[in-house]
Amino acid sequence: MKRVRLFVSYDGTNYCGWQIQSNGITIEEELNKAVSDLCREEIAVIGASRTDSGVHALGNVAVFDTNSRIPGEKFCFALNQRLPDDIRIQKSDEVSADWHPRYQDTIKTYEYCFLNRRIPDPTRRLYTYFMYYPMDVEKMQQAADYLVGEHDFKSFCTPRTQVASTVREIYDCSIIKEGDIICMRVRGNGFLYNMVRIIAGTLARVATGLYTPEHVKEILEARDRNVAGPKAPPQGLTLIEIEYPQDKKIYFSY
Amino acid sequence: MKRVRLFVSYDGTNYCGWQIQSNGITIEEELNKAVSDLCREEIAVIGASRTDSGVHALGNVAVFDTNSRIPGEKFCFALNQRLPDDIRIQKSDEVSADWHPRYQDTIKTYEYCFLNRRIPDPTRRLYTYFMYYPMDVEKMQQAADYLVGEHDFKSFCTPRTQVASTVREIYDCSIIKEGDIICMRVRGNGFLYNMVRIIAGTLARVATGLYTPEHVKEILEARDRNVAGPKAPPQGLTLIEIEYPQDKKIYFSY
Repeated sequence: MKRVRLFVSYDGTNYCGWQIQSNGITIEEELNKAVSDLCREEIAVIGASRTDSGVHALGNVAVFDTNSRIPGEKFCFALNQRLPDDIRIQKSDEVSADWHPRYQDTIKTYEYCFLNRRIPDPTRRLYTYFMYYPMDVEKMQQAADYLVGEHDFKSFCTPRTQVASTVREIYDCSIIKEGDIICMRVRGNGFLYNMVRIIAGTLARVATGLYTPEHVKEILEARDRNVAGPKAPPQGLTLIEIEYPQDKKIYFSY
Repeated sequence: MKRVRLFVSYDGTNYCGWQIQSNGITIEEELNKAVSDLCREEIAVIGASRTDSGVHALGNVAVFDTNSRIPGEKFCFALNQRLPDDIRIQKSDEVSADWHPRYQDTIKTYEYCFLNRRIPDPTRRLYTYFMYYPMDVEKMQQAADYLVGEHDFKSFCTPRTQVASTVREIYDCSIIKEGDIICMRVRGNGFLYNMVRIIAGTLARVATGLYTPEHVKEILEARDRNVAGPKAPPQGLTLIEIEYPQDKKIYFSY
């Protein structure tokens, strides 16, 4: 018996998110099918991040246990032959039997991309959030700077099941403009439910002048979801990378 | 009666190309429906470039005649509300009654994009041609340089209906690398059937060492389709812009 780890990329457009659901097809389901088919065992993968419907990933992480004699690093190619073309394993390897993708410290990097132009571009509609009004990148960055550090992000969280704490640390939040694309890249030790999308929706309001950058500090301090901006739509969001600092090396860098 | 011109962008993924076909939905058909619906007349648009199934466009051009009193520049917004989200009018204006998108000199710019990495990236699969083997951009550029100028491009054309001449002029053919994306941008006074995709397929062979750059000169001189490389797949191709030099100004620049 061995534990195999997968670095999973996907286009979330046609999926109801990661986690198995009764009302539609999910990434987890497709992975379970491909892995079970390849190993000829009934296998269920354990994922690191349960991304929402329509959200993309370049480096989500999953593990599974198998009796298969296929070497860990060969699963990548074998699974890609069985997966639909909107899911691709970027890398696979064998890890110790107790290595868990969630129950340890992680650093996650997300990117949220806006398309800022007068008319939408059909070829980028599935991976960006279209914004008609001119966006002020400098003001977005000023606002983003208030979020860096350890804070109670209760205002930036959709209340769901009880979480022990809404305190998280953001290490970096950078706004990068390339042509008509404006990307927010955020790296932190954990993100609450919908946190990146609510931050994106709030910074979009700063970008178009609806909020001042300073107002984001007030939103943060209010610890109240009702005062933050709306949740930005899923297609602009991509889970870029998950780092495991305890492993003392980066396994996969996109 | 007036003639309205449209600058049309689309994601070609879900279409059987521009031109109306019996076996599937096309861009032309969707435009005819939207224009006819808006103007309450039976209208058929005339397109500049009949792009193939799966090929994208940022700036294709079409015209139609109408008795509608809507000002030319307003059609852009009114049509976008009626079109599916993978087709968007970038600009509209009124032109003279004899302005024709095809029967005059044009300069077209196409881009063909490769994704060069070890494993495909699902979020870019619809807009690039995945290449596993490392691509040599310098050699691609050397090969591309042989194509610049006025030549008989018979080797780079799928034989179809009789064309008067297979001589065309390429003004520029540049290979640009950005991260794992390699784009060929080609600008010329006309392109034969499948010409850009056959050039792309041939340069891909140069890039991976199957052909020398100098061999592209021989292919050109052979005037024989059988000696060139394969036609690269449609999803890497985008019609970027059509210029009308006689108009003495650029109407739409993406």
